[in-house]
Amino acid sequence: MSTDELYQRHIQPLLIVISGPSGVGKDTIARAVIDERPDSFYFVVTATTRPPRAGEVHGVDYYFVSNDEFARMIDENELLEYAVVYNDFKGIPKQHIREALASGKDVIMRVDVQGAATIRKLIPNAIHVFLTTESEEELVTRLTKRKSETPEDLNLRIATARQEMKRIQEFDYWVVNRASQHEEAVQHILSIIDAAHCRVVQAPIVL
Amino acid sequence: MSTDELYQRHIQPLLIVISGPSGVGKDTIARAVIDERPDSFYFVVTATTRPPRAGEVHGVDYYFVSNDEFARMIDENELLEYAVVYNDFKGIPKQHIREALASGKDVIMRVDVQGAATIRKLIPNAIHVFLTTESEEELVTRLTKRKSETPEDLNLRIATARQEMKRIQEFDYWVVNRASQHEEAVQHILSIIDAAHCRVVQAPIVL
Repeated sequence: MSTDELYQRHIQPLLIVISGPSGVGKDTIARAVIDERPDSFYFVVTATTRPPRAGEVHGVDYYFVSNDEFARMIDENELLEYAVVYNDFKGIPKQHIREALASGKDVIMRVDVQGAATIRKLIPNAIHVFLTTESEEELVTRLTKRKSETPEDLNLRIATARQEMKRIQEFDYWVVNRASQHEEAVQHILSIIDAAHCRVVQAPIVL
Repeated sequence: MSTDELYQRHIQPLLIVISGPSGVGKDTIARAVIDERPDSFYFVVTATTRPPRAGEVHGVDYYFVSNDEFARMIDENELLEYAVVYNDFKGIPKQHIREALASGKDVIMRVDVQGAATIRKLIPNAIHVFLTTESEEELVTRLTKRKSETPEDLNLRIATARQEMKRIQEFDYWVVNRASQHEEAVQHILSIIDAAHCRVVQAPIVL
């Protein structure tokens, strides 16, 4: 294939999965990446049964749904994947991913580590980024500071996060989200996306 | 492997091969990439028997050597690879690559398409970037403008460049060096390098 043919070929939109342990800052970083190039990225909003945290907006950060509504979505096979995360359900409505891919933009999803593993099986050509802290200790500090959980919930969350940290090898890329240096992590993710668009072999995303 | 173990692991320097057809601007772009982060990159200087072009400095842009000296380097197995490019010899002294890799910096090489194919066999973990123009026509225009060749040399160079353009599929990445927009190509290459450092699986460069 000549470069002239390459130019004529449709450049594939990418599907980027931003994952990592609870407390690492997935929401903040995914949002900041999109804010850098709002016209280039499509953010897939996850449905969850957990209550909103301060400042979170329905339909923007998450779809906050009742347990009954979530059960209905499961029953009607409307979710790409779902998981119980610390007693709350989280899942990705298929319809949103289809809309996202149809937009022609790069699609960004913020998914917990369990969900990322499921997506890897369903959509092999997605790019998986593992967001991490500079150390496990720092992660525990961040989870402890959040104070939105009961002590029991917090202990469960810390134990789970430690397990999640060990799953980094399942991912394509890892990016450190240093405390108070979000911009660095955002730039690394933008580089990963930019580089992926420069690959000679571009695999289409099929759902 | 946990992230803590990953941090402790030595982050491998990369070997980046910037290649592409004659006239595409490999020299300019490779230099501009290095100028962006001179402390992070090590530039491997190629030996050549062709005479210097205006502004080219011995030991910085190329090692300009006589045919006899080049023949000696071949005889004494001092070159990683060498090729005849438009009646001139070009080759990469092994010693320079060893020094480059020992520096701990990312190593950048500017190599013609033939040389890149040889390096791919010798050093499988190198990252190969194919620099191209926005069209074959633009490449011909640039070669014609250069006016440093005889008409016969120019025709040979154009024919070869057209063949080289077809070899893009051998490369990992492709980057368009648009006329008067070098900065864009430089930024793409910096993204490719940045992303490669974020890969979870990092393969060592062995020579």
